[in-house]
Amino acid sequence: MARVFNFGAGPAALPLPVLEKAQAELLDYAGSGMSIMEMSHRGKTYQAVIDAAEAGIRKIMKVSDDYAVLFLQGGASMQFAMLTNNLLLPGTSADYVNTGAWAKKAMAEAKITGQIKEIWSGESHKFMNIPTAAEIEKAESAGAAYVHITSNETIGGVQYKEFPKTKAPLVADMSSDIMSRRLNVNDFGLIYAGAQKNIGPSGLALVIIRKDLMERCPETVNKFYRYRTHAADGSMYNTPNTWGVYIVKLVTEWVESIGGLEALEKRNAEKAKILYEALDSNNFWKPCAEKAARSTMNVTWRLGTEELEAQFVNEATAAGFAMLKGHRSVGGLRASIYNACTKEAVVELTKFMADFAKKNG
Amino acid sequence: MARVFNFGAGPAALPLPVLEKAQAELLDYAGSGMSIMEMSHRGKTYQAVIDAAEAGIRKIMKVSDDYAVLFLQGGASMQFAMLTNNLLLPGTSADYVNTGAWAKKAMAEAKITGQIKEIWSGESHKFMNIPTAAEIEKAESAGAAYVHITSNETIGGVQYKEFPKTKAPLVADMSSDIMSRRLNVNDFGLIYAGAQKNIGPSGLALVIIRKDLMERCPETVNKFYRYRTHAADGSMYNTPNTWGVYIVKLVTEWVESIGGLEALEKRNAEKAKILYEALDSNNFWKPCAEKAARSTMNVTWRLGTEELEAQFVNEATAAGFAMLKGHRSVGGLRASIYNACTKEAVVELTKFMADFAKKNG
Repeated sequence: MARVFNFGAGPAALPLPVLEKAQAELLDYAGSGMSIMEMSHRGKTYQAVIDAAEAGIRKIMKVSDDYAVLFLQGGASMQFAMLTNNLLLPGTSADYVNTGAWAKKAMAEAKITGQIKEIWSGESHKFMNIPTAAEIEKAESAGAAYVHITSNETIGGVQYKEFPKTKAPLVADMSSDIMSRRLNVNDFGLIYAGAQKNIGPSGLALVIIRKDLMERCPETVNKFYRYRTHAADGSMYNTPNTWGVYIVKLVTEWVESIGGLEALEKRNAEKAKILYEALDSNNFWKPCAEKAARSTMNVTWRLGTEELEAQFVNEATAAGFAMLKGHRSVGGLRASIYNACTKEAVVELTKFMADFAKKNG
Repeated sequence: MARVFNFGAGPAALPLPVLEKAQAELLDYAGSGMSIMEMSHRGKTYQAVIDAAEAGIRKIMKVSDDYAVLFLQGGASMQFAMLTNNLLLPGTSADYVNTGAWAKKAMAEAKITGQIKEIWSGESHKFMNIPTAAEIEKAESAGAAYVHITSNETIGGVQYKEFPKTKAPLVADMSSDIMSRRLNVNDFGLIYAGAQKNIGPSGLALVIIRKDLMERCPETVNKFYRYRTHAADGSMYNTPNTWGVYIVKLVTEWVESIGGLEALEKRNAEKAKILYEALDSNNFWKPCAEKAARSTMNVTWRLGTEELEAQFVNEATAAGFAMLKGHRSVGGLRASIYNACTKEAVVELTKFMADFAKKNG
């Protein structure tokens, strides 16, 4: 078996030790004589798994007891709707920061049932920039239900460098940079993230919500769509994605094993530095994001022609560097270097790039 | 490794060949150099997986092109809400058949945003009976938005033997007997099922919906909650539970390998016959469901005292027969003998039971 260097944007690479452990215990979890997939979520064995996953998230991200940590289904796309059901009540309006493709999706869903205001847009910069904390703080509307941001735009490759202190609860879609760097959870009212980039497989959404906010949801909203329904039952109001939560548990154990979030942040910054330095070292490469907005998770760039980009993808794939094609909506090239991407993968990629530039530059 | 005989109600046993295949290819799917969990759902390799899962369902259940087959998230509990968002429009009322715990959950969710009518109830029989097709046909309200049934009640252990021909679209929660016996999909408007009993792991809901019904959903409903949103994108409007769909694909291949639904139905009937005959052979055992309502999936019974029931569970567990405790809401004993449960498991259980009855009868 030859594992490739996987630069996919999501579902994305998982740490090899996590996959190996999942493989080893797939037929018999912890001496139970059954797969974790075959196990009742109501039993003691599984309860210990979901408890450990939650405890792992709480420890790594320093989440206080003022917040509920929920494992839901439907990914971030369901959260676009669910958060409005819970927090965007009739007669209120929420502020949205438009940083690109994913922010737009969140806005489109919110507009269906509620009132929103776009308080910042990167459109004039072709979404290659990111607002400062001060810009958002200044733009915030009086009495906003919440302020919504997208901490990292997977497609454009732009990422917040600092988070605003908003008067209204700050709501963040962190799908593509959750648990990749230190932050103060207390600055947020609600954090949500599809798991499939940094913390687990797809089919799972992590939600971290300040407990008092869960009470805002009216009783006229379907029970399944209320955060407090799931919080009241420890994410087991209904059968959770048991396999997905199990993998999240393994990922949190892996994060702890390599030194926690501090070490991971350092490693992610180092990987990004290596790759951006390579892109800046030769004007053969044309990085997309403005320097101040560059993402440590999704690195985007172009080449002189689309033909050359296609050639790059083909040759890279053949050399064992997978999934370097940019998102279908924008084209170009993209390397997603999430938590599970190793420094070795990035170093090897830059060597391949240097060689490619030499031959085609 | 010693695998136990798993009689859990869900998440439940999966076919061993499915688990073995998933284990073997966990680190490298089809020579891709990555796990199926690490793979983009937008790539050709994954598209072939979800296409095969859908084709497998369509072939086994004989689903025509008039129906969409969707792989959603959130399990049946989300469907309790989602189906009302799509089909229980303002000014309309839906009929619900109350056969027990799961029917009640569906009704409770529907009542939050809509108008419903309970047209049949098993309450006077302590939910140990099931209506005939004629009873429902007679009770159906004129102009009902739909008629909702629960094809198998997992907790009580009662199951429909025939399905009514309703004037309104027939909607069925088939979570605990989906793909366990032949039926005519054309008799239904909407079939939904959490995957974790008969067709895959948890975190996935299978939805089979007549295409014209998808158009009923108003544009005022959140886009994520509309069936047509997911149908338009082949269940990939957002990232699906890629691992879960992959396991469903393997399960459909396993069903085909043992002879399709006809063979599976026969095998399920045989297993149920063996177990019910054992229960009827000695009045030491007190089967719960009325004979005409007995489920081929969840077999429920009591013993003379709760102490004896606890002793049975403990001794059975020690002997390698897992998860025989009845649901916490009703107590007693329950053997769930879904598709993946082997005849051997049931035969061995009845031997253990005979021995237990001899010692304690």
